[in-house]
Amino acid sequence: MADHARLGDMLTQVDQGLEDALARLMDFLRIPSISTDPAHAGDVRAAAEWLRAELAALGFEAEVHDTPGHPMVVARSAAGGARPLLFYGHYDVQPVDPLDLWNRPPFEPAIEETPRGPVIRARGASDDKGQLMTFVEAFRAWKAVHGSLPTDLVLLFEGEEESGSPSLRPFLQQHAESLRASLAIICDTGRYADGRPAITTQLRGLVGQEVVIDAADRDLHSGSFGGLAANPIMILAQALAGLKDDTGRVTLPGFYDGVEDLPPELARDWEALNFDASEFLSRVGLSTPIGEKGRTALEMAWNRPTAEINGIAGGYAGDGFKTVLPAQARAKVSFRLTGKQDPQAVRQAFQDHVRRFVPADCNVTFYDHGASSASVMDISDPAFAMAKDALTEEWGQDAAFIGAGGSIPIAGDFRDILGMDSLLVGFARDDDRIHSPNEKYDVESFARGARSWTRILAALR
Amino acid sequence: MADHARLGDMLTQVDQGLEDALARLMDFLRIPSISTDPAHAGDVRAAAEWLRAELAALGFEAEVHDTPGHPMVVARSAAGGARPLLFYGHYDVQPVDPLDLWNRPPFEPAIEETPRGPVIRARGASDDKGQLMTFVEAFRAWKAVHGSLPTDLVLLFEGEEESGSPSLRPFLQQHAESLRASLAIICDTGRYADGRPAITTQLRGLVGQEVVIDAADRDLHSGSFGGLAANPIMILAQALAGLKDDTGRVTLPGFYDGVEDLPPELARDWEALNFDASEFLSRVGLSTPIGEKGRTALEMAWNRPTAEINGIAGGYAGDGFKTVLPAQARAKVSFRLTGKQDPQAVRQAFQDHVRRFVPADCNVTFYDHGASSASVMDISDPAFAMAKDALTEEWGQDAAFIGAGGSIPIAGDFRDILGMDSLLVGFARDDDRIHSPNEKYDVESFARGARSWTRILAALR
Repeated sequence: MADHARLGDMLTQVDQGLEDALARLMDFLRIPSISTDPAHAGDVRAAAEWLRAELAALGFEAEVHDTPGHPMVVARSAAGGARPLLFYGHYDVQPVDPLDLWNRPPFEPAIEETPRGPVIRARGASDDKGQLMTFVEAFRAWKAVHGSLPTDLVLLFEGEEESGSPSLRPFLQQHAESLRASLAIICDTGRYADGRPAITTQLRGLVGQEVVIDAADRDLHSGSFGGLAANPIMILAQALAGLKDDTGRVTLPGFYDGVEDLPPELARDWEALNFDASEFLSRVGLSTPIGEKGRTALEMAWNRPTAEINGIAGGYAGDGFKTVLPAQARAKVSFRLTGKQDPQAVRQAFQDHVRRFVPADCNVTFYDHGASSASVMDISDPAFAMAKDALTEEWGQDAAFIGAGGSIPIAGDFRDILGMDSLLVGFARDDDRIHSPNEKYDVESFARGARSWTRILAALR
Repeated sequence: MADHARLGDMLTQVDQGLEDALARLMDFLRIPSISTDPAHAGDVRAAAEWLRAELAALGFEAEVHDTPGHPMVVARSAAGGARPLLFYGHYDVQPVDPLDLWNRPPFEPAIEETPRGPVIRARGASDDKGQLMTFVEAFRAWKAVHGSLPTDLVLLFEGEEESGSPSLRPFLQQHAESLRASLAIICDTGRYADGRPAITTQLRGLVGQEVVIDAADRDLHSGSFGGLAANPIMILAQALAGLKDDTGRVTLPGFYDGVEDLPPELARDWEALNFDASEFLSRVGLSTPIGEKGRTALEMAWNRPTAEINGIAGGYAGDGFKTVLPAQARAKVSFRLTGKQDPQAVRQAFQDHVRRFVPADCNVTFYDHGASSASVMDISDPAFAMAKDALTEEWGQDAAFIGAGGSIPIAGDFRDILGMDSLLVGFARDDDRIHSPNEKYDVESFARGARSWTRILAALR
């Protein structure tokens, strides 16, 4: 399907246009579109308008849609072709605090030389303005060579990704008909740690649960009541400690229902990554993977569910010592889910588990936080193999199907609301410092990212 | 030994002097001797001087001794007699916050009528000015009837009891020779809950221990690291949950070494108290005693050791949810000790226990807080039976030997430094609101307290 002569022309076009493309990206990066800060609402809208204008100039029908929060940019092109595609990126950025740790003003982008090559330094360079512009630049090259855009396209750009995407699901529901495509393409992930290109084909789901245990109606003196009155911290510790057995398995009944072993194709890819868990952990001062016995480290990180305690509080934890027997203890617990685990069933099993530890004269209250299933893409869709081959060709090394331990709720939303899988391809590096001071994006990531999309589009359309 | 005619005279003397005695106590209560507040240092000294003057007027050689903190008042009388006695009380009081919860200014004492009889309302009325004045008034009656004081006496009044008694041990060590007596008499405890007179013959000891577990060198994202990186809250929860088994027993090896079953005499006394654990717990919103199976509730409260978690903190426990995998978790744990348990051995066993849960790439740090043995008085000293009989006679109901779940460090200090047991007799009620707004002391406690000491002195001297 790919027209090899014209693919070569397009790649040349991307290469020759790099300087202009970087200049455009830097214009985009100068807009301080911090979505969590109401003072920047005008800047967020300005970034949306900037994108709209860019896409209109490329021949898209581009619109800025108002939402109860920040706007959505939707750009469409109806060129026919084998399969309609929806591309997703987000144009809002993280806050910049602490500002004094930045080596340059975060919204005055520049190309800096580094020992590992030139980088674009600015807030949003990697997350996600630089990334989303890789596919925009690929469309530009396509247009330049063909005079038109490839296939039926919807480009969707969100301005609230860094503040929890409150408007996204309602927007997808409201516009489901006009947004539905054969595949969503999300450019907000990274290459594998060693730099090889990667497609993220599975993401863990998440259940967040807060638990509060109330015992006496006031803090007690441990001299008077110790040994008689229930201690809510002890109850909580026993309930939480009981979540895992000696082999690292989660003990909740039915917890592993729906968890699936890795298909052989992915197992081979993951093995080829030569993941070094000790090296990975050494970056944060640790050395030894915990987790289930008999599983590889990457399985534990990507394909096995977890139970983690994210926070705990109770009694007196300040300086010095108080022999208080506290009235209350609380914890926040989260479960990362894989395969077809049911978030509601996991939540229920956890609540049942905790209740067994709570005596009749104490109370337990649960506060539900997010619940999302794992996203496991159907890699038998030929688009995955095509994209993998295209990335392998571009980068000169085997692209890999990888997993992610975290969640990207948007992939779940596309699945749930629009009924389509997501092809997650991005070019960020582990050292891009996203969400931190001195964020950067390698010029190589940007340039070869645009070339990669050009190849993928040529293969998929 | 008691001269019955003269005991009757002395009791009459106490009764007839009640109005004057209350007036003196109210003078004393008007001095805002809050030891923790540097702004009141002058008031604390004024209270010491007030006491010195009172005692000098009674014929004691009374002195105010400077310390690095607030002064000690020491009053002596050398009258010979069967056994020298040291009486202890403290003239400092707790702060009064929150002031707006008081129904009258805390340092403007008054007699108030209540459904349960008249009370003296003021900060310090019960803890401990009203109590210490019970024995001072007994000495006054003795002097009035006999023209002299009974036996060899040392009266020791501290001004730092409410702020941790920092000067007490050094003072006892420095003046050990001149303070040593055959028995210490401490008037800072209460009657049993139902109002019957009581002698506290055993106090639990205390070991305080803080434990901090460090895992990664920073907070981690639970998506990236969950399942691989050690979670210090989970490590802590498992270590703490493992402190007790299903029967409520503490699992530390050797923990029960030195714990002794109650001697039959005390077991009988305690049984006669008809302690209603459910009623006791219902006052704080609970109903069911936890603790070791097969033990009575009073044993659990007074004669069995405990392990309590007093505080815990780690990760994110604020509003909302953060999927952080925290770097650190900490807890404060305390053990109440009984019998001959060795505080250092308990501390060591706890540390060894926790270390078994900490993986090699994590760190655990221990911060030692207080360590004190239990105080178990030798009730074969005839003074205990004599005092018990005297109290029974005064109150018209059987006095009881009771225990206390908390610690009174001064009793341990008298044992350790001066080599003598303490006879703990006081007349406070559970509803005296010590340390809280609207503290009170029953006029009955005060009047019959002075009569009780008169009887005890007559028996002991």
